[in-house]
Amino acid sequence: MDVMDAILKRRSIRAFTDEPVPGEAVERLLEAARWAPSGGNRQFWRFIEVRDPRRLDMIKMFSAGLKGDPTLIIAICAKVSEPMNLLDLGMASENIMLEAVELGLGSCAIASYSEGPVKQLLGIPDDTDLVLLLSMGYPDESPAPRPKKPLNEIAFSEKFGEGFRS
Amino acid sequence: MDVMDAILKRRSIRAFTDEPVPGEAVERLLEAARWAPSGGNRQFWRFIEVRDPRRLDMIKMFSAGLKGDPTLIIAICAKVSEPMNLLDLGMASENIMLEAVELGLGSCAIASYSEGPVKQLLGIPDDTDLVLLLSMGYPDESPAPRPKKPLNEIAFSEKFGEGFRS
Repeated sequence: MDVMDAILKRRSIRAFTDEPVPGEAVERLLEAARWAPSGGNRQFWRFIEVRDPRRLDMIKMFSAGLKGDPTLIIAICAKVSEPMNLLDLGMASENIMLEAVELGLGSCAIASYSEGPVKQLLGIPDDTDLVLLLSMGYPDESPAPRPKKPLNEIAFSEKFGEGFRS
Repeated sequence: MDVMDAILKRRSIRAFTDEPVPGEAVERLLEAARWAPSGGNRQFWRFIEVRDPRRLDMIKMFSAGLKGDPTLIIAICAKVSEPMNLLDLGMASENIMLEAVELGLGSCAIASYSEGPVKQLLGIPDDTDLVLLLSMGYPDESPAPRPKKPLNEIAFSEKFGEGFRS
């Protein structure tokens, strides 16, 4: 699938079928993350993939932002020494979410969870931050695109505030 | 181009030909950014595309991390109210960099620049942060991939530290 197609087809998916995500697909998602750019090529990111239904249920219990019943969660972790590191983690997360579209999977980025309990469920050490959860699985909905600001509201040519002209 | 191909082919490009980037390509890059996910669909990002050779030169003068002579710079800006917003900006930036691969363009994410002068050159208001510069253009080099940590060092199954098994 073309990059632009995947970008345009990606939705935040909050309803999943109960079809499990095969290991080879999980490996591709993590491989996509592995090749993301990172400042100074530091690759300080760590990923935990969860497919055990019991652990998925427990994570869900402590994640207010998590809707539906994902069959896969990928937890994005890192020792975030400076906020700028979050840019790299965003890039790796986007690689996962776009590759998911290519594989027919849906995803939703979740930032709303109880950090303490979820870190404990995932065995994340104290010195490491849990930054984002990606809830994933085969989509059981086809939501319309969310409204997006038009290009001329978010993009400028040459100087901030000057209309974009292609 | 398939998503995974673009992910694997992307390199940080630091040498560019002097071929200008056409407006339609710039529009596609910004369109890719526009469709990135953002927390609560807030889309608080703003993008400035710079192709004026004089302004490109001046930005370069104040950007220690910028190598080569890009024919396009996309500045990623936002009012970063909380560090987590940086995740969204990373996702939008990755969309731009992957779509660039599809269009035959190269890119490099630059975080090392003198914020004051570059903000002034771009007319960015005081209340808005300049978060990242993407230097872009048609690549004049084909760098080998940077070494990447193996999957079993960065990915775990079920719990942090437990070996990844697909």
